[in-house]
Amino acid sequence: MAQKPSIPKGTRDFSPAEMAGRDHIFNTVRTVFKKYGYSPIETPSMENLSTLLGKYGEEGDKLLFKVLNSGDAFSGVTPDMLSNSNSLSVKVCEKGLRYDLTVPFARYVVQHQSEIVFPFKRYQIQPVWRADRPQKGRYREFYQCDVDVIGSNSLINELELVQIVDDVFGKLGLSVVVKINNRKVLSGIAEVSGHADKLIDITVAIDKIDKIGIDAVKEELYSKGIDEDAVAIIEPILTLSGATEDKLTRMSDILSYSEIGLKGVEELKELFGLIESAGVACEVELDLSLARGLNYYTGAIFEVKSKETSMGSICGGGRYDDLTGIFGLKGVSGVGISFGADRIYDVISTLDRFPKDAVEGTKVLFTNMGDKEMRYAIPLVKILREAGIASEIYPDQVKLKKQFDYADKRGIPFLAIIGEDEITNSKISLKNLSTGEQKVIDKEDIINSFKN
Amino acid sequence: MAQKPSIPKGTRDFSPAEMAGRDHIFNTVRTVFKKYGYSPIETPSMENLSTLLGKYGEEGDKLLFKVLNSGDAFSGVTPDMLSNSNSLSVKVCEKGLRYDLTVPFARYVVQHQSEIVFPFKRYQIQPVWRADRPQKGRYREFYQCDVDVIGSNSLINELELVQIVDDVFGKLGLSVVVKINNRKVLSGIAEVSGHADKLIDITVAIDKIDKIGIDAVKEELYSKGIDEDAVAIIEPILTLSGATEDKLTRMSDILSYSEIGLKGVEELKELFGLIESAGVACEVELDLSLARGLNYYTGAIFEVKSKETSMGSICGGGRYDDLTGIFGLKGVSGVGISFGADRIYDVISTLDRFPKDAVEGTKVLFTNMGDKEMRYAIPLVKILREAGIASEIYPDQVKLKKQFDYADKRGIPFLAIIGEDEITNSKISLKNLSTGEQKVIDKEDIINSFKN
Repeated sequence: MAQKPSIPKGTRDFSPAEMAGRDHIFNTVRTVFKKYGYSPIETPSMENLSTLLGKYGEEGDKLLFKVLNSGDAFSGVTPDMLSNSNSLSVKVCEKGLRYDLTVPFARYVVQHQSEIVFPFKRYQIQPVWRADRPQKGRYREFYQCDVDVIGSNSLINELELVQIVDDVFGKLGLSVVVKINNRKVLSGIAEVSGHADKLIDITVAIDKIDKIGIDAVKEELYSKGIDEDAVAIIEPILTLSGATEDKLTRMSDILSYSEIGLKGVEELKELFGLIESAGVACEVELDLSLARGLNYYTGAIFEVKSKETSMGSICGGGRYDDLTGIFGLKGVSGVGISFGADRIYDVISTLDRFPKDAVEGTKVLFTNMGDKEMRYAIPLVKILREAGIASEIYPDQVKLKKQFDYADKRGIPFLAIIGEDEITNSKISLKNLSTGEQKVIDKEDIINSFKN
Repeated sequence: MAQKPSIPKGTRDFSPAEMAGRDHIFNTVRTVFKKYGYSPIETPSMENLSTLLGKYGEEGDKLLFKVLNSGDAFSGVTPDMLSNSNSLSVKVCEKGLRYDLTVPFARYVVQHQSEIVFPFKRYQIQPVWRADRPQKGRYREFYQCDVDVIGSNSLINELELVQIVDDVFGKLGLSVVVKINNRKVLSGIAEVSGHADKLIDITVAIDKIDKIGIDAVKEELYSKGIDEDAVAIIEPILTLSGATEDKLTRMSDILSYSEIGLKGVEELKELFGLIESAGVACEVELDLSLARGLNYYTGAIFEVKSKETSMGSICGGGRYDDLTGIFGLKGVSGVGISFGADRIYDVISTLDRFPKDAVEGTKVLFTNMGDKEMRYAIPLVKILREAGIASEIYPDQVKLKKQFDYADKRGIPFLAIIGEDEITNSKISLKNLSTGEQKVIDKEDIINSFKN
């Protein structure tokens, strides 16, 4: 009995039409990254599980795909080990699929530190895997496009990341807003509210303001033991309005007793100043509630949202001062952002904004009505291909109707019809399938028919 | 204690320099595939283990990387199950990493048959994973570049694959020989030798002739129970010399009592005729001992070898008449070849034949000697990037020597030096780092300095 074929849930096949859209996105980000002086690297799909475990929190550990040891994975496993699934899985699986590109990058930098020229500007476009519950827009295998610079403290790196975002989404024809915050400002807010120890609780709560509103945020703060006086300090920050400059001046006042908070305000002032002077086309906004999980970030925090759809974040990142420390290389600061290719695909798709010529398909199909006709076509198709014009000969000698249908379904714009008459007179009948126009040309003119 | 970072054995990191070489190969094959009318698809890294198991022989099953089920993988596992590692591993792992691109392609065709336009010409460039013992030139994660047409019996497809090989290796600057055989001829040889039932033994033995010589092949044939009379029929076939046409005429005689054998000779005659009339630059050779494992092949068999190195096969493939049958779609014939990107990389590398401009790195580095200088450079670098010229500002304000060193190590050819004088006079000092030449230009002329 034949198997009914399927693929694991949360994974996808990509058809030629989907590939064209995806390649459009990858080529765009790649071209922009290179223009800004970033170089590509790749890391293996599998990392040692010890490299990955403990880097993404307890929840993240659960979402790692583990790879069974090859050979006899269960030799040495005793019945009592079955009672502890976690430790058993780590015993029989020494490897796991990468969960993101950031931890492998940190591992790469430490492992290859002697070969790397710092500051190291790298980009990386590869799939990652997470055993998340699959749902609309969330997959178990998806691509990240990461761009990071490591080994430099200058805020010009932050400026360049904003310029890269502006450039990429401009080229993709999407209207976006770049939201910016600074982790030090969040620390300052926690400090002046008298709850420096509750930084995580505070930021997790205020990060939700867009979704749940100010009243629910306040409720959550109270429930975490933040007192009314503290909330009275935090609330006006979240509802600050006006120009970025004015907001930052207000924040300087509010955070005047927090050294780290003032440092954060200063960094934001400098970054917004750089962005102002460089000039970017997209909207850039100070968002004092932006936190993005906080895992690594120590300075700037970025998030990019599509202004034309309700798709959440399509790109995000920030500065991290000690990413490589976990692998033994201390004091190397970096900053980077990650483009979510799958979500960007969904946005462009929803807005129907893929360029119509993104599918670089075949331009000419030569019909095949017999051996003589086929042999007549072979050198002609060769000439076209040598000129870089994608072309095909229909391989089988079947009814012309079927060959027409093939061209039509494949979206091939031109049909080169070869019959007795054409061979006798050294001609080609060339039919434009979109206009229906058909003309007879000298076979020597084939190449000129497609040059313009 | 910090972990000492490493990666699983048999896997690799790719540095920017290595990526440049790899991208050169991928871009070359991709461009050629498209020119011949092939479209890209991608399939998930993980397939259901049931899709993969039993497709690569017993040895292949052992080399599959299995992925542990997420959640509690060991719930329901009882101590007695520990005695059978194989069945336990299939119980706790429902997914595996793909082993090649052919089986996923067959699965794709069957699963999406209603959306596909046949004949379906597809290419696929993705990594595959095998738990092979790592050794020089053999990795546990490596890329395959497959190009197949499915749903067509015409030998023009075989011709096109040879043209594709010729095109790809011509563009890569490698001298290769394409060896061609036909499975039906091998069947015919087994048949006329009176050992149709020992086809596998015979082909496995004669496939080794290049490595072990004719005498050792004869020994192996005897050891498999092939009698002297049969060997007397097989031996002259293996030592046939002369032009391809003469060899094929001889084979017609030898195989005159084997219907399938004669069919194979006829196919080879037609294919070599097509290749002759189309004209290819590389060497094409009839190799009657070529078998390539035989797994799927039913017609043409291809193998490509580098003529300038001793690296074995760098590309191979053939025709298979029933690949999709295992997934329930019968009678769909296909033919394809697979380029081994990693081996091709090693060959080009050994011959030092990567194009010197393959590394599309940064062209200009602006020095950064202070805030004022940096702000002067920001709009200039923007102009260059808008013109598609990759450029950078050194992010940190450190000693000029360090910035020079960075440009040098990164292989950046031009340094744009900005100091007090340059700013006062609206100039840029542009230094060519390979010639040492330095000139002062108007800042408005920056773009013209890089156009030619």
